[in-house]
Amino acid sequence: MLPWLLAATLAALTGVTAGYGGTERNCSISPPYLPSTAVDSTRQLQELRKKMLPLKMNAYIIPGTDAHLSEYIAPRDARMTFMTGFKGSSGTAVVTNTKAALWTDSRYWVQAEREMDCNWELQKDVSVSSITEWLMAEVPKDGVIGFDPFLFSLNRYEEFSIILELNNRTLKSHPNNLVDTVWTNRPPIPSDKLIRLPDRIIQRTWQDKVEDIRRQMRETPNQPTAVLLSALDETAWLFNMRGNDIPYNPFFYSYTFVTMNEIRLFLHIERVTDDLKKYLDTSCGGPLCVQLLSYDSVLTEVRKYVTKPQVKVWIGTEYTNYALYEIITPQDKLLVSTYSPVLTTKAVKDETEQRGLREAHVRDAVAVIQLLMWLEKAVPEGKETELTAAQYVNNCRQKQKDNKGPSFETISASGPNAALAHYSPTNETCRNLTVKEMYLVDSGGQYLDGTTDITRTVHWGTPTAMQKEAYTRVLMGIIELSTTIFPSGTRGANMEMLGRKALWEVGLNYGHGTGHGIGNYFGVHEWPVGFQSNNIPFTAGMFTSIEPGYYKDNDFGIRIEDIAVIVPAKTKFGNNYLTFEIVSLVPYDRKLIDTSLLSPQQLQWLDTHYENIRKVVGPELDRQKLTAVKDWMLRQTVSVRGTASSLNISSSSLPFLTLMFALIQNFL
Amino acid sequence: MLPWLLAATLAALTGVTAGYGGTERNCSISPPYLPSTAVDSTRQLQELRKKMLPLKMNAYIIPGTDAHLSEYIAPRDARMTFMTGFKGSSGTAVVTNTKAALWTDSRYWVQAEREMDCNWELQKDVSVSSITEWLMAEVPKDGVIGFDPFLFSLNRYEEFSIILELNNRTLKSHPNNLVDTVWTNRPPIPSDKLIRLPDRIIQRTWQDKVEDIRRQMRETPNQPTAVLLSALDETAWLFNMRGNDIPYNPFFYSYTFVTMNEIRLFLHIERVTDDLKKYLDTSCGGPLCVQLLSYDSVLTEVRKYVTKPQVKVWIGTEYTNYALYEIITPQDKLLVSTYSPVLTTKAVKDETEQRGLREAHVRDAVAVIQLLMWLEKAVPEGKETELTAAQYVNNCRQKQKDNKGPSFETISASGPNAALAHYSPTNETCRNLTVKEMYLVDSGGQYLDGTTDITRTVHWGTPTAMQKEAYTRVLMGIIELSTTIFPSGTRGANMEMLGRKALWEVGLNYGHGTGHGIGNYFGVHEWPVGFQSNNIPFTAGMFTSIEPGYYKDNDFGIRIEDIAVIVPAKTKFGNNYLTFEIVSLVPYDRKLIDTSLLSPQQLQWLDTHYENIRKVVGPELDRQKLTAVKDWMLRQTVSVRGTASSLNISSSSLPFLTLMFALIQNFL
Repeated sequence: MLPWLLAATLAALTGVTAGYGGTERNCSISPPYLPSTAVDSTRQLQELRKKMLPLKMNAYIIPGTDAHLSEYIAPRDARMTFMTGFKGSSGTAVVTNTKAALWTDSRYWVQAEREMDCNWELQKDVSVSSITEWLMAEVPKDGVIGFDPFLFSLNRYEEFSIILELNNRTLKSHPNNLVDTVWTNRPPIPSDKLIRLPDRIIQRTWQDKVEDIRRQMRETPNQPTAVLLSALDETAWLFNMRGNDIPYNPFFYSYTFVTMNEIRLFLHIERVTDDLKKYLDTSCGGPLCVQLLSYDSVLTEVRKYVTKPQVKVWIGTEYTNYALYEIITPQDKLLVSTYSPVLTTKAVKDETEQRGLREAHVRDAVAVIQLLMWLEKAVPEGKETELTAAQYVNNCRQKQKDNKGPSFETISASGPNAALAHYSPTNETCRNLTVKEMYLVDSGGQYLDGTTDITRTVHWGTPTAMQKEAYTRVLMGIIELSTTIFPSGTRGANMEMLGRKALWEVGLNYGHGTGHGIGNYFGVHEWPVGFQSNNIPFTAGMFTSIEPGYYKDNDFGIRIEDIAVIVPAKTKFGNNYLTFEIVSLVPYDRKLIDTSLLSPQQLQWLDTHYENIRKVVGPELDRQKLTAVKDWMLRQTVSVRGTASSLNISSSSLPFLTLMFALIQNFL
Repeated sequence: MLPWLLAATLAALTGVTAGYGGTERNCSISPPYLPSTAVDSTRQLQELRKKMLPLKMNAYIIPGTDAHLSEYIAPRDARMTFMTGFKGSSGTAVVTNTKAALWTDSRYWVQAEREMDCNWELQKDVSVSSITEWLMAEVPKDGVIGFDPFLFSLNRYEEFSIILELNNRTLKSHPNNLVDTVWTNRPPIPSDKLIRLPDRIIQRTWQDKVEDIRRQMRETPNQPTAVLLSALDETAWLFNMRGNDIPYNPFFYSYTFVTMNEIRLFLHIERVTDDLKKYLDTSCGGPLCVQLLSYDSVLTEVRKYVTKPQVKVWIGTEYTNYALYEIITPQDKLLVSTYSPVLTTKAVKDETEQRGLREAHVRDAVAVIQLLMWLEKAVPEGKETELTAAQYVNNCRQKQKDNKGPSFETISASGPNAALAHYSPTNETCRNLTVKEMYLVDSGGQYLDGTTDITRTVHWGTPTAMQKEAYTRVLMGIIELSTTIFPSGTRGANMEMLGRKALWEVGLNYGHGTGHGIGNYFGVHEWPVGFQSNNIPFTAGMFTSIEPGYYKDNDFGIRIEDIAVIVPAKTKFGNNYLTFEIVSLVPYDRKLIDTSLLSPQQLQWLDTHYENIRKVVGPELDRQKLTAVKDWMLRQTVSVRGTASSLNISSSSLPFLTLMFALIQNFL
């Protein structure tokens, strides 16, 4: 699934903005035209403005996140959606007394035009400076801009406050979220019981993990006495526990506070079963016993802790909200790093986690191969749609061992819908699948032993030359990136252009990032691994998606996405070099590959990868007694060199080719 | 010439630290061993500490820069060198009452060990956090760390102050530089008259440039009323003037302050001739008349200006010193960008500048080809050294039209000396040149119409297989990077790995950056263009060096450096794509190229480049009546494909190869 956007410049390169007549609002005519998907936001805007008035707020900022700065949020945290109607997973809304604006990135521009009414302007530059410029035009000097400190990271707060204060506007935190006060039907906190992961998929117990974090605290020069964990996957990882609070994301509302002799877990205690209490050793009092505290008491407890002398709390600035940050005073009681030690430790998977992820990808490949085989047969019959295809793959996954549902809402997009990078089908937009259109399916599963995420693009009829060339060059991006050997510690951002290089050669590009981390039964975008500039350097044992694409407005969309693990590479002269190994084992669409564009090395890579699919997925298909599926898979993984030019070159390195060429010439 | 280091991690990869017995100090024995190159720093340290005492300073920071934050500095600004003895172009010294330490990057570690005595520790991690950590260990709580605000950029000040204040140390600016007060023989301000560039090499007059800057001021949303220019090349560029204050760098001490109706030039007025005064229209009073003010009055004048109502001064944070920054208060009178509008405008060369740079590189190629030809003949006779070679190329350049001397001290390094990336020969270290060692020469010229910078590595005997492979892979870096097609606005940092990719494949790498901007009779490292993370995105008309390398400790060093201009690229589908065109026209050492490692595309690139050298440098050699040199050049630029495999393939694209291969097979 697509990672966040790299930058506004990239977004501008694709411009997936064009719409289709009546599906988008038109606020420039009178009366404005609103599609049936648009949400009337008049009442909630009126009520919010009524709340702002006595507080003397000229504007109120509504981020699309939660108190844990999650990318995906629970329904009760969907304040931005409640206010705007826009259901995208990324955005910021701002309301003044007379205006309202939403900022979201290019993935969601069309969706926003479909879902918002004309109370809202759509702003396309998602930089903080774009929001503050808008605020400066709308809010008078000495005006007050309110925000909920639980929904701002420290970094974001600073970015806003520096610019606004410089321009004589006050950024004022308000303890109660104003949207919540007008949201009468706000969903309650989920009451589902929490679970612990089975021992068979665990290598490090929660006690091992706590001890490792404490070791890192001891080894840190500035001697922190506590670590505060705010991101939901931090607590879930530390205790090997999962919940169900956010759709597709097995997290539960929580914070953790670890000192050298205490472990405090803040959560909704009524959700912890007796079995779990035993597992967490909640009744003892030692350094490896977990104290359960109420989720809402975290602010009070942290405040209490920092009044003690000689304490220092370590936080990661990316996932700690401003409300928690601002109570850790004076500043010498604070130790900050971009990511907490849990996030950086979690980024490198242990052997069991690596095996789990690989195995989950084998079972997941079965489900996706089943989908592709079925579509090939069913689509020409004319009854399938984007929605039935999405349903089919979800069903296939459900039959796989340890499946816990999809890891995100399946992107099932035919023809022009696929040009919208983050489209998911609805009843209103759903297209029939036909042999005349390309089809893109980006889907993933949650399995107890690993999260998967894969995109395939196919054509069941006759692709155009342009479609073949674009698809082949997207595939070349996968191959170029995944075959690169690089020193341990190289940043993904400094290599990701390899995913674009073959496209750039002919003037094509894509407007999204090239890949994101992924983990073991977690959110499908697992930070801080990946190819973005704020991702951490690559080391062996990390998992990332690789997902180049190409999108032609109003026509088609191509994306190929595989998951890769970073593994050591043997080199002739050096040590400590790494490379990628693809663990997604689903064949690419042969019809769309123009083998004449591929170098001998690239052709060889493809054949080796296909052999690996046969070797690894074949036995799994046998085990599941899916004979027809295996036959189909075998047909898709025939050597490309064998069929490309009736040649089967056993070694296709260039020096070898040159030599053979010379020999043949001599022979002639 | 080498750009600044990318990052400490990269530095660690090469580790050019090893020394050669007696040429480096050994402070771990008693008495310490000091080579003859080491400088006794006892007296100046004593005197500086005497000055620190009454000011209650626990430490004093001595950066290796000047008030304009120049990379290369005039002798009178070489305070770090005066204190430490270390003559490298980059470093920071810190003195406490009992200790003294120097931070410099891997290019200079060996040099520092040769030039410093045992009063000084050498610190190898040049990050601010490494310096502040050292300070925290050496300076007690509530201690005071002094610095000269003219020698700190705003960014650098903030980096230091945040960490130090958080840890209860005070960073205190002191108006008079303490080193200057103990430096009795400090060189005076140069008295040379300044010059203006001849009209024949100028497209934009200084009046055009001022008007362009004013247009940018008007178009900037925050409405600056003035621009303050601090970097020396900003003023030199704006007025098309040059000076001679810094060795190899044609700059003069100056600041410029431009408002909508005034132009103030701060400099040493006695250096401005009557002719120049006329050129600058100094006697009138209009918006295109230059007011000359004393260099030392800049602080007073800027302070006076900011007391006026409704003013806003635009500065670039990278090159404005903290002394100037801190007087622009309150903050709403300040507008900051990383680089001033002059630096970003200057980065894109106009047609005349582009032509000038290309032409300067043709004449420069003649000089370098002369050097290479002469060395090939002279070295086997056994009398030549690193110093005579450096002298020879300087002499060759001097004979070229419009030459103004070298653009930096020539790096002329044989065998193990070349493994020190920034080595320049001295009488003590100079090696004889022999057919048994590789030789690296990195040199450049200042010409009125352009600055040049080129590195060639050669072997006059029989290179080892490893040397050939490393050289070929360095060359592959040049080819891979310069043939890439990329969207306008791509950052160099996101592409520079292409310069390393072929090396990485076999576990090799280099510890310096991949390239830096260069311009028209300016400093050889022209910011902000290049491949570093703080360089601006590439657009057409920029010039940058491309200079991958490989260094084997105590053995040899390889670097190939060419200058490239960014030009539009035609692509099949897209617009606004760019590529590199190499303007350095000196052949590579054929003996060191293993053509079997090169792809058909790479071999073709090499032949095309060689044809271009023949086409462009050939006529220039004819013009200069250098027949023997031309013959030598022609021999060096024979087609590599012709000789590589006795084949001369007219089109070497892979699809073509595959097709031919298939045809031949059918034929057989």
